Amino acid sequence: MVEVTTARRSKSWIASLRGIVQAVNPFLFRFMTVAKNESWVGEQAVPAEARVPKIDLLDASEDAYGGVIVDMKEPMNSDLFASALRASTTKWREQGKKGVWIKLPIELVNLVEVAVTEGFRYHHAEPSYLMLVKWIPTTANTLPANASHRVGIGAFVTNSKGEVLVVQENSGKFKGTGVWKLPTGVVDEGEDICTAAMREAREETGIETEFLEVLAFRQSHNSFFGKSDLFFVCMLKPTSFDIQKQDSEIAAVKWMPLEEYAAQPFIQKNEQFNYIAKACLEKKKGNYTGFSAVPTTSGFSHKQNYLYFNKKVLSGTNTCENSHTGKL
Amino acid sequence: MVEVTTARRSKSWIASLRGIVQAVNPFLFRFMTVAKNESWVGEQAVPAEARVPKIDLLDASEDAYGGVIVDMKEPMNSDLFASALRASTTKWREQGKKGVWIKLPIELVNLVEVAVTEGFRYHHAEPSYLMLVKWIPTTANTLPANASHRVGIGAFVTNSKGEVLVVQENSGKFKGTGVWKLPTGVVDEGEDICTAAMREAREETGIETEFLEVLAFRQSHNSFFGKSDLFFVCMLKPTSFDIQKQDSEIAAVKWMPLEEYAAQPFIQKNEQFNYIAKACLEKKKGNYTGFSAVPTTSGFSHKQNYLYFNKKVLSGTNTCENSHTGKL
Repeated sequence: MVEVTTARRSKSWIASLRGIVQAVNPFLFRFMTVAKNESWVGEQAVPAEARVPKIDLLDASEDAYGGVIVDMKEPMNSDLFASALRASTTKWREQGKKGVWIKLPIELVNLVEVAVTEGFRYHHAEPSYLMLVKWIPTTANTLPANASHRVGIGAFVTNSKGEVLVVQENSGKFKGTGVWKLPTGVVDEGEDICTAAMREAREETGIETEFLEVLAFRQSHNSFFGKSDLFFVCMLKPTSFDIQKQDSEIAAVKWMPLEEYAAQPFIQKNEQFNYIAKACLEKKKGNYTGFSAVPTTSGFSHKQNYLYFNKKVLSGTNTCENSHTGKL
Repeated sequence: MVEVTTARRSKSWIASLRGIVQAVNPFLFRFMTVAKNESWVGEQAVPAEARVPKIDLLDASEDAYGGVIVDMKEPMNSDLFASALRASTTKWREQGKKGVWIKLPIELVNLVEVAVTEGFRYHHAEPSYLMLVKWIPTTANTLPANASHRVGIGAFVTNSKGEVLVVQENSGKFKGTGVWKLPTGVVDEGEDICTAAMREAREETGIETEFLEVLAFRQSHNSFFGKSDLFFVCMLKPTSFDIQKQDSEIAAVKWMPLEEYAAQPFIQKNEQFNYIAKACLEKKKGNYTGFSAVPTTSGFSHKQNYLYFNKKVLSGTNTCENSHTGKL
């Protein structure tokens, strides 16, 4: 009934994030010298058991899942790293440790091959570092998964005349097609969806906005490097009206009657764009309720995040736009 | 007005995915021998300009953004790789190429240091490979961002008696707290949100379900390794009622009156859980509309994906559950 990989999959988001956050943030490691004297001890003076060379061990902090994290910061000779990693792994195995993480800054690229030779696999990489991991026990591997999605937004900005803010792109799929489309873009790492929508509208068109609702979202797969994609259609209210086109990517910007936007052959033929246009038209008529962005905290930390839901029936909630502008 | 990094950010999701998909899928590269004879040509027999050794070039396919992709598959001596990479980069620079991608399977870890020495940076990694990239021109770097989010789900399963399916976990934050919570889990790579919700409910409780709606979602940041997290609360309709608890992570499973679930002190004190519980209560009363999952295609490919939106006002749409079960 339950598969072997279930342990990783069904870990609750709370449980799975808790330990990692605790564990990865305080990367406060250093190379710890256990033995003061690394040389062979003279045979004449000491008993046989002391003739084994003392090996430096890698310092590591414990994570909340019974694993350890090694955050290499200082340059090291790869042979020295190899012997230290071998000795440390023996110790961690004896201690019953589970996952062993090694974070290698790109400057320490000379240590990557050693780690792989010692049985480590890549977990994830960012431009400046590579994270490797090894699962020590014989039990099922419960290492957390890598990031799996990229997130994008489309900005649906309508004015009081029932017009929608549209652009023509001068690169990509739509270049030269004459199609008028919503401003779109990628949500930056660490950026809120509602904030990204306001930023993209401003960057592409010069129009300032307030976030109102997520009208729809779409999940697709294998969109880049085998990863998935979530795209959120965000309804925004303009607070400025002076169009300032972005030159590098945008060929034209204008306000267009929503019905005219929806009637474009491209929209009509594209099932998914057509649904989105219908939702926008229903929204204009007042027949549609999307998800508002309400700032909340989780109870596990004091960091604010946004919950997006249909708040039509709930009162007294702040939203993304008045949270940002300070109007509460 | 528009920042330097705008080009990367505001690229539409369609445009930014198009080229990558075209480019990365057909990784059909090999090491191409340009010169049959790699040795120095005898000084006596040939003119001076022919005394330069011929260097092998790396074969690469072009991507849709004016870049090239090298997919290394066969083992190679790192010195040979270094000379080939240097010569190839000179050629790519002359050709005006932009981003150069090198995909190295973990078995070719001996080539990582060479690539970094030649100015490549890490882009992303999966257990079996590392992707490195170098931006050649002096213009702004428009390389696509790495995956930025992990996605999780909570399963809100209610029966006809107004009871909700809840679990107690035997690991993580909730272990030993006595809190009854919704089944939760991580969406697998390539998995639809609606499918993941049904899977998690089945795996943790043995209950089969049909997907109805996304009731809310939450975005948070810095949740693991600096990445962000999207968590979708999904309403499901049970189609079986025989509870079969998963032993490894779940301590208990039961049906509980929704009001009792919402009244738990933990839920009451936690702003975000409280909002979600309120939405569930309003849903039970028929006062709440979430987002349905409607299978669509994009028009750019025939691959099905799901659009999630408030389809109350739209008719004739299929949904996740009847798409899966074949009931149209």
